[in-house]
Amino acid sequence: MPHIPLPEHLPGITGLLEYSQTTAQPIRELTQILLRGDNTLSQGERELIASIVSHQNECKFCTSAHTAAADILLGNTQTCEMVKHNLADAPVSPKMKALLQIAKMVQVSGKAVSPQAIEEAKNQGASDAEIHDTVLIAALFCLYNRYVDGMASVTPPVESGFYQQLGERIVHHGYNRLPQGYDHLKK
Amino acid sequence: MPHIPLPEHLPGITGLLEYSQTTAQPIRELTQILLRGDNTLSQGERELIASIVSHQNECKFCTSAHTAAADILLGNTQTCEMVKHNLADAPVSPKMKALLQIAKMVQVSGKAVSPQAIEEAKNQGASDAEIHDTVLIAALFCLYNRYVDGMASVTPPVESGFYQQLGERIVHHGYNRLPQGYDHLKK
Repeated sequence: MPHIPLPEHLPGITGLLEYSQTTAQPIRELTQILLRGDNTLSQGERELIASIVSHQNECKFCTSAHTAAADILLGNTQTCEMVKHNLADAPVSPKMKALLQIAKMVQVSGKAVSPQAIEEAKNQGASDAEIHDTVLIAALFCLYNRYVDGMASVTPPVESGFYQQLGERIVHHGYNRLPQGYDHLKK
Repeated sequence: MPHIPLPEHLPGITGLLEYSQTTAQPIRELTQILLRGDNTLSQGERELIASIVSHQNECKFCTSAHTAAADILLGNTQTCEMVKHNLADAPVSPKMKALLQIAKMVQVSGKAVSPQAIEEAKNQGASDAEIHDTVLIAALFCLYNRYVDGMASVTPPVESGFYQQLGERIVHHGYNRLPQGYDHLKK
């Protein structure tokens, strides 16, 4: 049960964004820019960063939602699974592997990001902007994971099909608030 | 030295917000709403939440900046010092003590927030909105601290007077971008 009363039909982050709409607006905007804006990292690659950080933070809601989004965008379920459980052998580019390694360090602490990990990413062709965005996406999911679990929001079971539907929504509609008429997608 | 080239005259978060202005805008807005918006928690109390989380994350830049802001708003330096180092004996209300305890838990992990800590806050008179805002402010500073230290941004020494000036700025001008003509406050 959530620590405060939240809309019952809106689990996880969705109920929190509805509960506090003034703070939801900039959170949505920041996420839309970072995960859906113009970027040399693909949307799927950025969803992998969201997934690995949420997984390391053991936030089941965010991990399931962003894994679903990554799976749709990448067209397979193996990549995200490997990234979360065995990054060294995951089928992603050496550059992406280095950036995901940085994201894992950010999850631990800002200070845990080593100059060696940054150098490895640069050696593998990562740009300054890609390093910046990786760190900020990882930091943003450290916010999300703490918001979702710190309020004890509802986590639907994976079998419910909820995350598949949420994944479709954030792939096709992004992170901005849905206009009227999309209420079925909120459920 | 920062992991990527940042404006040299803008240390800590200030250079990052300048480097990536599109993401800076919603980050500033979220902070302005949470730390300066209408709230039953005072601005000083909310700066205490920012300070205790930054301190627990060992982010010297954010700790020094928000301690300076809290000190100005509260009119003394002892309160924030005690909150960071000896919360049990700090001269804050029992409600605030319970909320700061929740903030410390959020710093560890969303899952670390115990139902007992929430109940204690409610018993001490904390509203649902105050609990929500405490969790979200704490989560936001988990983002900030990782952003600032994860990019290895420059941390000026405390003796430089930088944080006192930054504290004055965020107390008197808030977290929005300063208009033209305030350039002296950026340094």
